[in-house]
Amino acid sequence: MTARRGGGGLIGAVAPVMERLGGTWIASALTDGDRRVAAAAPNGREQDGFTLRILDMPRDVHDLHYGVVSNEYLWFLFHYLFDLPSQPVFDAHFERAWDAYRHVNDLYADAVASERGGRVVVVHDYHLMLVGTLLRRRRVRRPIVYFHHTPWCEPEYFGLLPEDVRTEILHGLLSYDVVGFHARRWADAFGECCRRFLPGVRVTTTRVEFRRRQTRIIVSPVPIDVPRLQRDADGPLVEEWARRHDEARGGRKLLVRVDRIDLSKNPVRGFLAFEQLLERRPRLAREVLFLALMYPSRLTVESYRRYYAECTRVVRRINDRFGEHEPVALHFEDDYQRSLGAMRIYDVLLVNPIFDGLNLVSKEGATANRRDGVIVLSRNAGVFEEIGPATIAVNPFDVAETADAIERALEMPRDERRRLSARARRLAQRSTPEGWARAQLHAAGVAL
Amino acid sequence: MTARRGGGGLIGAVAPVMERLGGTWIASALTDGDRRVAAAAPNGREQDGFTLRILDMPRDVHDLHYGVVSNEYLWFLFHYLFDLPSQPVFDAHFERAWDAYRHVNDLYADAVASERGGRVVVVHDYHLMLVGTLLRRRRVRRPIVYFHHTPWCEPEYFGLLPEDVRTEILHGLLSYDVVGFHARRWADAFGECCRRFLPGVRVTTTRVEFRRRQTRIIVSPVPIDVPRLQRDADGPLVEEWARRHDEARGGRKLLVRVDRIDLSKNPVRGFLAFEQLLERRPRLAREVLFLALMYPSRLTVESYRRYYAECTRVVRRINDRFGEHEPVALHFEDDYQRSLGAMRIYDVLLVNPIFDGLNLVSKEGATANRRDGVIVLSRNAGVFEEIGPATIAVNPFDVAETADAIERALEMPRDERRRLSARARRLAQRSTPEGWARAQLHAAGVAL
Repeated sequence: MTARRGGGGLIGAVAPVMERLGGTWIASALTDGDRRVAAAAPNGREQDGFTLRILDMPRDVHDLHYGVVSNEYLWFLFHYLFDLPSQPVFDAHFERAWDAYRHVNDLYADAVASERGGRVVVVHDYHLMLVGTLLRRRRVRRPIVYFHHTPWCEPEYFGLLPEDVRTEILHGLLSYDVVGFHARRWADAFGECCRRFLPGVRVTTTRVEFRRRQTRIIVSPVPIDVPRLQRDADGPLVEEWARRHDEARGGRKLLVRVDRIDLSKNPVRGFLAFEQLLERRPRLAREVLFLALMYPSRLTVESYRRYYAECTRVVRRINDRFGEHEPVALHFEDDYQRSLGAMRIYDVLLVNPIFDGLNLVSKEGATANRRDGVIVLSRNAGVFEEIGPATIAVNPFDVAETADAIERALEMPRDERRRLSARARRLAQRSTPEGWARAQLHAAGVAL
Repeated sequence: MTARRGGGGLIGAVAPVMERLGGTWIASALTDGDRRVAAAAPNGREQDGFTLRILDMPRDVHDLHYGVVSNEYLWFLFHYLFDLPSQPVFDAHFERAWDAYRHVNDLYADAVASERGGRVVVVHDYHLMLVGTLLRRRRVRRPIVYFHHTPWCEPEYFGLLPEDVRTEILHGLLSYDVVGFHARRWADAFGECCRRFLPGVRVTTTRVEFRRRQTRIIVSPVPIDVPRLQRDADGPLVEEWARRHDEARGGRKLLVRVDRIDLSKNPVRGFLAFEQLLERRPRLAREVLFLALMYPSRLTVESYRRYYAECTRVVRRINDRFGEHEPVALHFEDDYQRSLGAMRIYDVLLVNPIFDGLNLVSKEGATANRRDGVIVLSRNAGVFEEIGPATIAVNPFDVAETADAIERALEMPRDERRRLSARARRLAQRSTPEGWARAQLHAAGVAL
């Protein structure tokens, strides 16, 4: 088994599978530490029951592949984040970056082709959409699975891409035997893009046929590792954090959000919704603490820096307006224990992304919470298809609706809270790492 | 016949029809002059063969309906112009503005219902999507046609709207007997939105059935008034402007763009494409003049002001980089004669909108040009479905492709230019004001 290591939820999703099933995990070096490992063990080294093989890409190629194409173009594309009047610009610089994207995909294909063992290849995420094409050229015979961890966008938006890039990506995905998505909605959008841009294609909900080759389409949301999460949530550090958060709220109800800072996560509208609610119900400024735990991310991208500053500005305004109680506490720190401590004791968890491939925080929250907490969830998170009925749904652009939803969640009678949170927990734990892996392998015709 | 007067191409499209067919044209007062007319003749007054009736809306209601909902929300929605991480925000302010939108639609419905004559009602554009619903409530029996002059967006993007607003708009459109679009593509997107958001709806390419009522969907691009345009283009002022432009270019080839300044029109990427071309072919800096005629518009909207400044900045940079020839001449002035003068003599006309309902400039250019000029046209303009095969097509986000297209157009052999421009002229003139009106009335079961 082969996989790409990426940021955020992907490692957490893939690691448990690798630990259980073994195989070789191929990933790019992102840090100097990674690069030393890559140099010391070019064919990989054993750890936690699998082999980790790190590829050290030429630095400039890596920067164009990861920093430019993946982070500045594809991430924005799949999440509808472009400010179209000025972005994207597909120019000579992009063409060079796209060459680097191809090159990195090629180096992965080389690495995969050089691995002789294994019954199946699994490729993870939008950084590696062309690996399938390149493996076919190398006559690799094992089944090849691709898993897409972000949303997929609709045809008009996908059509922003230059024609050759668009075609290369679609041909890339249709060279896999199986393509997996977290939600039906993204799988459908992918099917629509095939219909719009590939003459002669045949699309159903479960497969795409193109040029006499068939690709299975599966919807299989990534699971959380429940035993591990529960062990972590019971740990002494998390316990200590839960105590501290509890002290900070001092008898107030606790509204929590936990995100990597990303343009897709929509913190500002979350704060605006809370502000609108406080305007209407000023007493809530004394009765609720909004604890926002945000992990700094991509601060090299200018639009991200601006957004970070905007969060701070809005929170300061709210705290200035609503007096001595400081109803919003905003922390920028990457501290998993601290977040888990907050998840244990929230009354309401706000998860309102603009668009989100899945959103693991809501599954983690549902599992770790011990206070019958209620989740306010964006309809545009992939996870909405799994746990939506056990949440209060919001349109993430609708600040008025979000304010109402937060109020409803805060004021919900005890019995209803208990029922809803128990249901959310059940739904969030329905899929397992084994089940997730099995779905992909089964679709590829490989028995686990 | 009833219609709404709006900015830009809509007056030019509707006026010839009104002059030929008569009826009453109901429109909002936009200026103090309009308001005086409204006060002096509340039931309208005769002019050019039809009755013009101007409605004077309460100023604050007008501002919310036109300035906020129509210009800042719906225009951005239908053209994919939002910068999603920060816009749109649907909050209490929007809710008030939406009430004003409803109110204005209501006042139009009152005005229409009070008109006793006429066999059909035609409602124009996205400012008045609810008039159909409101006329049904008033038991107006005449057939009601709605024409949508902008693009229609796909479901994920349409889904940005609050649920109740979304539903109200779709129900609004499906209360008309006929809904018209400029292009198949927008009609299809509308159908997709119905499918996604209206349970129980039945959608085909020519009709939508919902709650036992049927709406005909027609695709009927707005025509230009060819005799009038040719008369105008032959006028002495236009002649004089053509002479002046000719003098300014001084033997160089002439690349022209003519737009209202709008975030959807994409001037900056047009300039960037020209810059990329000059980098590659420095001699073109001596051999080509890029004449950009832009009509100032919506300068009260901040993002428009910023965009205006960005145009100026990029043009100055290009002129600084490419020496004494000043290859770009940028003029901000609303002067139709001047534009027509440029259209008469362009070698290449660049029309590269991000998204555009139709785009009349390209039809006017094809008709007025006397130099076998070639059009470089965005695939995202509705008019592409009419005249695309007679143009050089570009993806408006793809600056590299646009640079190539401009080069190809400039360097095209004489015979090919002549063939292409003759074909563009023929295609641009295929529809007529009478034919356009007839298509709408025919679909509504009314003989012309």
